Amino acid sequence: MIESKKKIYLDYAAATPVRPEVLAVMHPFFSQEYANPSSQHAAGINAQKSLQQAREKIKNALNAEYPEEIIFTSSGTESINLAIAGIARANKNKGKHIITTKIEHKAVLETCQYLSKNENFNITYLNVNKEGIISLEELQQAIRSDTILVSVMYVNNELGSIQPIEEIAQIAKKHHILFYADACQASYLNLNVHHLGIDALTLNSSKIFGPKGSAILYLKKGTLLHPIIHGGGQEFTFRSGTENLPAIIGFAKALELISQEKEQEILRQINLQNKLLQELKTKIPEIIINGPQYQKIPNIINISFPHLEGEQIMRYLNQHNIYISSGSACTSKEITTSHVLQAIGLPENIAKGTIRISFGKYTLEEEINKLIEILPNIIKTLTKISG
Amino acid sequence: MIESKKKIYLDYAAATPVRPEVLAVMHPFFSQEYANPSSQHAAGINAQKSLQQAREKIKNALNAEYPEEIIFTSSGTESINLAIAGIARANKNKGKHIITTKIEHKAVLETCQYLSKNENFNITYLNVNKEGIISLEELQQAIRSDTILVSVMYVNNELGSIQPIEEIAQIAKKHHILFYADACQASYLNLNVHHLGIDALTLNSSKIFGPKGSAILYLKKGTLLHPIIHGGGQEFTFRSGTENLPAIIGFAKALELISQEKEQEILRQINLQNKLLQELKTKIPEIIINGPQYQKIPNIINISFPHLEGEQIMRYLNQHNIYISSGSACTSKEITTSHVLQAIGLPENIAKGTIRISFGKYTLEEEINKLIEILPNIIKTLTKISG
Repeated sequence: MIESKKKIYLDYAAATPVRPEVLAVMHPFFSQEYANPSSQHAAGINAQKSLQQAREKIKNALNAEYPEEIIFTSSGTESINLAIAGIARANKNKGKHIITTKIEHKAVLETCQYLSKNENFNITYLNVNKEGIISLEELQQAIRSDTILVSVMYVNNELGSIQPIEEIAQIAKKHHILFYADACQASYLNLNVHHLGIDALTLNSSKIFGPKGSAILYLKKGTLLHPIIHGGGQEFTFRSGTENLPAIIGFAKALELISQEKEQEILRQINLQNKLLQELKTKIPEIIINGPQYQKIPNIINISFPHLEGEQIMRYLNQHNIYISSGSACTSKEITTSHVLQAIGLPENIAKGTIRISFGKYTLEEEINKLIEILPNIIKTLTKISG
Repeated sequence: MIESKKKIYLDYAAATPVRPEVLAVMHPFFSQEYANPSSQHAAGINAQKSLQQAREKIKNALNAEYPEEIIFTSSGTESINLAIAGIARANKNKGKHIITTKIEHKAVLETCQYLSKNENFNITYLNVNKEGIISLEELQQAIRSDTILVSVMYVNNELGSIQPIEEIAQIAKKHHILFYADACQASYLNLNVHHLGIDALTLNSSKIFGPKGSAILYLKKGTLLHPIIHGGGQEFTFRSGTENLPAIIGFAKALELISQEKEQEILRQINLQNKLLQELKTKIPEIIINGPQYQKIPNIINISFPHLEGEQIMRYLNQHNIYISSGSACTSKEITTSHVLQAIGLPENIAKGTIRISFGKYTLEEEINKLIEILPNIIKTLTKISG
């Protein structure tokens, strides 16, 4: 009886809790070390030091060359906007063509659309295959003499599919085009910006068990960028506003911890993924598994049940205190099927029956077992009703 | 001996600590109620409810008409940028002229400069008198047929001077021009947007004993505004990005508390101000008190000591563990004298010897007494050295 009240959160791709170790290091910065890092007295100087230490930690985690390459922003979305609008506006004298993909996060797509509608930029949206991966040939063909930026997400937030970032970087470099990657869902992958050969990259604290309110834009030194938030000149003039130190300190700690645990955690998650998919395939033969089999992160699982409704499956699971998503969190209020599922060519009757299960550090095997027990019954019930 | 180690923070205009009552209400939102308010499961729906309650609280504190008039952003600076760039871009078909003042925060001035340099807007910067107050006649005369926006700060962050907001609002209204006020330092004043007759207003959590990472833009319903951060369509499409719920909850609580304590606290601060100024005037006859005598908030005190250096006074006080500012926090890294002191016509040899003392809720009378004891000795010492 008690057990049935336990909440099983399987929506880690939408938001993660702050780890206790992270909250602990944030704590002094709320009410004791609260000074403005721009202040010149001892309290301000200490705040500035803490800020620089956090920046240094993140620089090291990404193997960036200079601390000035790490720009703190308030969210993944802000960082994405800063990268795309900032690079576009600062480099428009070289050209006004941007290449991105059809499966980017709304923050990328809407920023591109704004630039297209209001500032006369031209955008090419690359297709993806059935697995949600772009074609390098199509990318090559899309490049024009006025292309200034390629923006491709590292990992898709609905499918978990991983793009060939290094190859894209090489192509961009060959054509002297800047390459930016939204890496918000890629925290367990290789984030060595030097090896990746990338010019700009976004990472978000709130997706890696850090606090909301912090994210970074890695920006290779020398890359031209206009700020989108102007003012006191903080963050090397790229992003003004008093630094959110508690959140920045927490983010740096969260990234440090995740970097240490990466290999072990990814193996654990692969086991959870494989068990879940295997059991569901056995119990629900009509299940369709979206996204790639291997070129994906294990903690995002996207599955469809033809002729059913994802929303309804989500609600039934919710009644069992199991929390999943029927689409991307940021767009789940819209009734239309996800642009990502459309891009991989999923027929609408299948796309409508899609759910996303995403797990994380605190997901236990017994929680996955519970899902394996309950989901097939729900699918059976709903199939009966709809039939 | 112990007493001399006690820190006396008198830089509240730069940053405030988070109140314990505020931190307490934020706490559950870090690691328990961490879901994304856009998620459709029970945890997401609860997060959405908490978000709406916070919005409602702030709506009520400002006497706004609709909850949709409260847009959460990540900082005062972001909110200022959103107001000015957002209104300018959305209304440019009506004209490209903006009126502001010479003593605005850098966030206003730099945003205006960006719009002027990159998007062909024309900016008029109003003068201020010796006390840091604009002339309504000059405002009237500055209005052109293509003026779309008047942006005047409610309270200046260096001088504490209060602008005649209601009169400005009336003039703007008469000419069908939008009126925006940066109210980041005005939390103890009348914030009733209905009475003020204002179209847009910025308030910042981190200046009112709330957490860093949250601010609002009040935007009167129907006012046209382009977002500066695009994406999932949060905040009524005006500001995308997953909502920073812990910070928002904390901000709403901080504003609620400050609204309750306003009258009492402002009286207490007037007494502290009067005592401090009276004693300093007696002990240091050469002191110059900048800003208005009455049309100001009591907790920002701006004083000059001719032929001395504000930086040096600040450092000497710092050695006694007294933390003040030698300029505005956001610009204190620059060596040039403050644009505000230039605008009130302070000669450079006086402007250079200026310090800002700003106090707040936790400032005790004994701390002011300590300052009254120590500052005159420092001025005596420095005068000897410089003489």
